[in-house]
Amino acid sequence: MKIIRDEKELQNEIFKLKAQGKKIGLVPTMGALHEGHLSLVKKAREENDVAAASIFVNPIQFGPNEDLAKYPRTFEADCEKLEKEKTDILFFPEASSIYPEGYGTYINVENNFTDKLCGAKRPGHFKGVSTVVGMLFHLFQPDRAYFGLKDYQQVLVIKKMVKDLRFPVEVVPMPIIREEDGLAMSSRNKYLSPEDRLEALCLSRALKLAGDRVKNGERDRKTIYQLIEKEILKSKNAKIDYISIADAQTLEEREIIDPSSTLIALAVFIKQVRLIDNLLVKTVVS
Amino acid sequence: MKIIRDEKELQNEIFKLKAQGKKIGLVPTMGALHEGHLSLVKKAREENDVAAASIFVNPIQFGPNEDLAKYPRTFEADCEKLEKEKTDILFFPEASSIYPEGYGTYINVENNFTDKLCGAKRPGHFKGVSTVVGMLFHLFQPDRAYFGLKDYQQVLVIKKMVKDLRFPVEVVPMPIIREEDGLAMSSRNKYLSPEDRLEALCLSRALKLAGDRVKNGERDRKTIYQLIEKEILKSKNAKIDYISIADAQTLEEREIIDPSSTLIALAVFIKQVRLIDNLLVKTVVS
Repeated sequence: MKIIRDEKELQNEIFKLKAQGKKIGLVPTMGALHEGHLSLVKKAREENDVAAASIFVNPIQFGPNEDLAKYPRTFEADCEKLEKEKTDILFFPEASSIYPEGYGTYINVENNFTDKLCGAKRPGHFKGVSTVVGMLFHLFQPDRAYFGLKDYQQVLVIKKMVKDLRFPVEVVPMPIIREEDGLAMSSRNKYLSPEDRLEALCLSRALKLAGDRVKNGERDRKTIYQLIEKEILKSKNAKIDYISIADAQTLEEREIIDPSSTLIALAVFIKQVRLIDNLLVKTVVS
Repeated sequence: MKIIRDEKELQNEIFKLKAQGKKIGLVPTMGALHEGHLSLVKKAREENDVAAASIFVNPIQFGPNEDLAKYPRTFEADCEKLEKEKTDILFFPEASSIYPEGYGTYINVENNFTDKLCGAKRPGHFKGVSTVVGMLFHLFQPDRAYFGLKDYQQVLVIKKMVKDLRFPVEVVPMPIIREEDGLAMSSRNKYLSPEDRLEALCLSRALKLAGDRVKNGERDRKTIYQLIEKEILKSKNAKIDYISIADAQTLEEREIIDPSSTLIALAVFIKQVRLIDNLLVKTVVS
């Protein structure tokens, strides 16, 4: 695996690969890698000639009171995991080189759904995400880029950006990967004490209950909402940031659950740690 | 010359050319082509395997009271001129296909210099420009893109966008092309009656006088400003939109003219027609 810190070096490498007609698959990450990330790398490895990843804790997607400074950084362990997955290129730049003094250009998806859910709770977050992802797309010129559906809204925002601005990139969304007990994998799980780790199960448990009820025919928002709320509040250190029961494309809240395309999404604080999880309700015909 | 209206067709064509390792030079235009545009096409032809152009009157870079509806459209004549310059590909899309319903992603250079000069007078203009140019860069994947320095500030904005977002494109600025009598070529010159056409010479005349005075050692902003103002106001149908004497990189107004890097730029209405022109003061050592 080539570990590249300098963007000029990366660009030269990419130009070389493109000239050879190689297909490039990109997995942009903020590091602190877990099985969720690695499932993206595996897929990138499968579908492309070159499997590339980036590790960059993007400062502009964090709000002033968020966890930028203490976001987990586990570079050595990340490298080992990426090596094992036969990653070809890892880009690991300095924040000061990505955003030098006088930096000033932003990509913003000014769409209705950007301001909902996490967008409402984290102003500027998705502008930071779309800007850095756009920049990484220019640096890597990937044919495909892989994103996990735990960040469902992020996938929507990136797909919209790619579609609107005609990036020549295929966005590949990948399923949520969970721990055996149901907890959605997240770099932020590292923040949890063993006790809080147990409390954090309330997210996936609430979603499971909600999913089962919807599967059994429940269509009323309020019923499902209260079911989730009640389950989460059983955990004494849990504080609900939002519960969303929304159209899976527009993220408009729904009064009646449409079984063909509804997202049930949660953001919950376990003490100071903000966790998200979601479940997609759709109709499958087989 | 291939005239392409459909963006999928364009993308297929571009993918084919890229796979063959062809270098692509792009000249984005709004049509109503004149010798200024053609100088860009000639350069693109010289420096690349493929000379490509686009004609698209970009609605989002026009303000509500500007001349979008009446902007000159001369498609047949434009095609003839582009054929003559051996253009390979002309992209000529519909506005409704570029910005379909629900379009919502914008690239914005939030830099100090964006809000000065034309940016101050035409709010949102450069956001529209950077968005469409970014999109065209994704559609054409050019190695080089050519822009005329009559739109000096536009060149700065695009260079900044390319640098910040790491577009893999070289921006090539090209000199202003003038009519024999000095009028800077512009598609908007078509709006001028023969009488107003003569009045419009006040822009280049004022710049010439200012340039000569600076060449002879004048460094005082006020003196140069008043010289320009007086010259322009000799034309009875001229109304000054702005006179700028500024740092050529930051566009900050200067009290003392720095002979190594100063832009003198004008926007003047001749009746309803808004014209711009500029002159760059720099030190050349030979």
